[in-house]
Amino acid sequence: MSTAPSAPVTADAVASVLDAVDAGLDASLDRLFALLAIPSVSTDPAFHADCVRAAEWLCTELTGLGFEARVHPTTGKPMVLAHYTPEGPAAERPRLLFYGHYDVQPADPLELWETGPFEPRLKEVAPGRRQIVARGAVDDKGQLMTFVEACRAWIATHGALPCPVTVFFEGEEESGSPSLMPFLDSHRDALAADVGLICDTAMWDRDTPAITVMLRGLVGEEVTVQAADRDLHSGVFGNAARNPNHVLGRIVGDLFDDQGRVQVPGFYDGVEDAPGEIREQWAALDFDPAAFLGTVDLSVPAGEADRSVLEQVWSRPTAEVNGMIGGYTGDGFKTVIPAEARAKISFRLVAGQDPEAVRAGFRRFVRERLPADCTARFDEHGGSPATVVDIANPFLTTARAQLTAEFEREAVLIGSGGSIPIAGAFKDVLGIDSLLIGFGLDDDRMHSPNEKYELSSFHHGTRFWARFLAANAG
Amino acid sequence: MSTAPSAPVTADAVASVLDAVDAGLDASLDRLFALLAIPSVSTDPAFHADCVRAAEWLCTELTGLGFEARVHPTTGKPMVLAHYTPEGPAAERPRLLFYGHYDVQPADPLELWETGPFEPRLKEVAPGRRQIVARGAVDDKGQLMTFVEACRAWIATHGALPCPVTVFFEGEEESGSPSLMPFLDSHRDALAADVGLICDTAMWDRDTPAITVMLRGLVGEEVTVQAADRDLHSGVFGNAARNPNHVLGRIVGDLFDDQGRVQVPGFYDGVEDAPGEIREQWAALDFDPAAFLGTVDLSVPAGEADRSVLEQVWSRPTAEVNGMIGGYTGDGFKTVIPAEARAKISFRLVAGQDPEAVRAGFRRFVRERLPADCTARFDEHGGSPATVVDIANPFLTTARAQLTAEFEREAVLIGSGGSIPIAGAFKDVLGIDSLLIGFGLDDDRMHSPNEKYELSSFHHGTRFWARFLAANAG
Repeated sequence: MSTAPSAPVTADAVASVLDAVDAGLDASLDRLFALLAIPSVSTDPAFHADCVRAAEWLCTELTGLGFEARVHPTTGKPMVLAHYTPEGPAAERPRLLFYGHYDVQPADPLELWETGPFEPRLKEVAPGRRQIVARGAVDDKGQLMTFVEACRAWIATHGALPCPVTVFFEGEEESGSPSLMPFLDSHRDALAADVGLICDTAMWDRDTPAITVMLRGLVGEEVTVQAADRDLHSGVFGNAARNPNHVLGRIVGDLFDDQGRVQVPGFYDGVEDAPGEIREQWAALDFDPAAFLGTVDLSVPAGEADRSVLEQVWSRPTAEVNGMIGGYTGDGFKTVIPAEARAKISFRLVAGQDPEAVRAGFRRFVRERLPADCTARFDEHGGSPATVVDIANPFLTTARAQLTAEFEREAVLIGSGGSIPIAGAFKDVLGIDSLLIGFGLDDDRMHSPNEKYELSSFHHGTRFWARFLAANAG
Repeated sequence: MSTAPSAPVTADAVASVLDAVDAGLDASLDRLFALLAIPSVSTDPAFHADCVRAAEWLCTELTGLGFEARVHPTTGKPMVLAHYTPEGPAAERPRLLFYGHYDVQPADPLELWETGPFEPRLKEVAPGRRQIVARGAVDDKGQLMTFVEACRAWIATHGALPCPVTVFFEGEEESGSPSLMPFLDSHRDALAADVGLICDTAMWDRDTPAITVMLRGLVGEEVTVQAADRDLHSGVFGNAARNPNHVLGRIVGDLFDDQGRVQVPGFYDGVEDAPGEIREQWAALDFDPAAFLGTVDLSVPAGEADRSVLEQVWSRPTAEVNGMIGGYTGDGFKTVIPAEARAKISFRLVAGQDPEAVRAGFRRFVRERLPADCTARFDEHGGSPATVVDIANPFLTTARAQLTAEFEREAVLIGSGGSIPIAGAFKDVLGIDSLLIGFGLDDDRMHSPNEKYELSSFHHGTRFWARFLAANAG
């Protein structure tokens, strides 16, 4: 391979790569379409061979770029692991670990797709606005290909990448990633890097990029309150026999005060607000809480009364009762006192909270509310701490600068809606922070029929990574 | 028919009837067994013809005794209505309306029966203690036949009954009695009487008879709390979106204070304690709350802290959450904020409470606890007031005296475990009070396999009714 440009990379060197991205866009789309045409649905065994085919396709592409790439079989879907080490000083730059997933959601209901989910096409929805339509367009093939194509443009223009890069693709993200943790554990050395890059998120809006800098942790608890050893007839025992529905109702009712604060003692210990810079940025956003809630026919925020909606959703911890059941719930009526009632409760954690302390605090809270004759059984459903990227992290600083350069607008630093386990896994197992930078939009219909990815997202995303590679080079 | 003994009936006249009951016990059992052998299961259409057969069997028996008896078809199961009017002064005595039901519960699970559910037999469980084992033995064929056989003994001994009697049997008690109210409504004249007699309850214990003098009313309410217009992902909306599980939990948790008192304003308006005489009797009973609760692995009464367990179960009003559900309740976890949560709540009423006032009070209570964005939908599931027999009722006085005569022990005046709609129906439609006097025992395995009725219950029960008929004659 040729020698990479000497660090720091000149503006001209970057500009040539960006020109190559622009010139090669159609060919990039052709390659993306080839990947999109492979129905790599991981949840359905009928598509196992297609998943393997998608992994091999990516391996072949990366090998063609000069990566040392391998497909690693697992008991589930194979991993793709590829390494690129440039020669010369570039080899000393921080190594980037880029993650994506090649598996996609099932396509059904098929009848709601305008065109075949695995027949990718470019659709012009308005003058100058085109979208890539296929299952996987945004989640995650379009996104992961922005990085691959940025690497391609670098290598085509300068013969080499300007820094070390590892590319890691899994094929089970849509099906719970059962093979992920064991693989990370047994391939720590092969996955060693200085920072993770995860391209699986969205922009703030079509013109404004975003970096997800905080992911709330999650503690799941199922509590079952038990009293009598069997369901009872409420005529015979009513009033005298303890009713677990009442006990559970009291527990749930006590969880919050009227100001929306969680009442589990110690819950907020160690919790700090998001950094002032971030909160100011959020306050300045054109975010309309009423419109946000209005999309689901709500109007008044239900969280902590002294926090903004964005803080409530992104940077404050909370508890949610996701499910609750006790007694007879079918049609009609049955005058029964149930033997038990249960609730599934999830706690979203922020930095500073320890999942096991939160779990212990909740269990104490419940036990204090158990009257005589009642016992509680607890079943845990996972516990993971929050993941936070320090606002002073140099890679974050680099990314912000390059996003501004590409989009001519400051990136918004946001919290995450869903949980993104790979970021926590990289932190826990590999000890590295991750930047979550993606170019999806809220209306991409992810997981739905007619999933799309803006062509502008694919284009700008590729250009951004090209800039980022350069900036990481020095 | 012969002339009945002139009122008042002499002790000797009664004694001869009792002798006839004793002498005819085996033949009475044969007749009861014939009725028990008919599988008159009302909930299963496959047994419709057997239900009709049972009705006709009873009609034939009553006709043979001298009643004017008819089977009345309905859109469901037929009613049996039979009238006996003696000649002479006996015709002026109060008319007794005896109620029973000839339909029985389904027998399954069949494999748990020691012998066929419709192959009645006499089982000796201890020296001198024998039980009638069959489906319907206690509920209700054995019980209703105590009255029929008492009438038979009277007529066999003296040629006539000593007072007017109407016998009314339905065939849908185990399946919600859909034909009952329309039939009562359209046969008020045919059912006119001075008091109802309902033989479908239990004794206090094997040696102690009981009369049920209070039946709590029932108000059923299903409340559905709704917030967003769809289930929400708690990562995206959590903390900001109202969660109906939390709102419902608060409502349920607020229903009672720590002393077990219902917190719906006005709930206890008009509620009075049971008469002092009754409460004293209950306090003197050999009732062990711990043993009662211990049968279902409980130990501490959950009701109003300043009332005894018997008062809690029989004479105090209450609320019970019979069912509660909201969100994801299947296996595993799903981080969802449900669009709605609902609860089925039943209120047991005592004398002085108006069902519609209780319903209105509860709805007000709920609405006061609905935050912004939440609505509540209410579905009613029935409302009936309490039924109470005035302790000064002369028929009650008569029954108490005759139970003491037969059992050589005072009858306990008790409240009811389950709801017995016929008593309220007789009051509402016919304007008469009813005495609920039965000879079942708590261990009869009603509604279960190997249902039984003590032979001593059948025997003493028949003798009691013979005495009661006499006492009613003057």
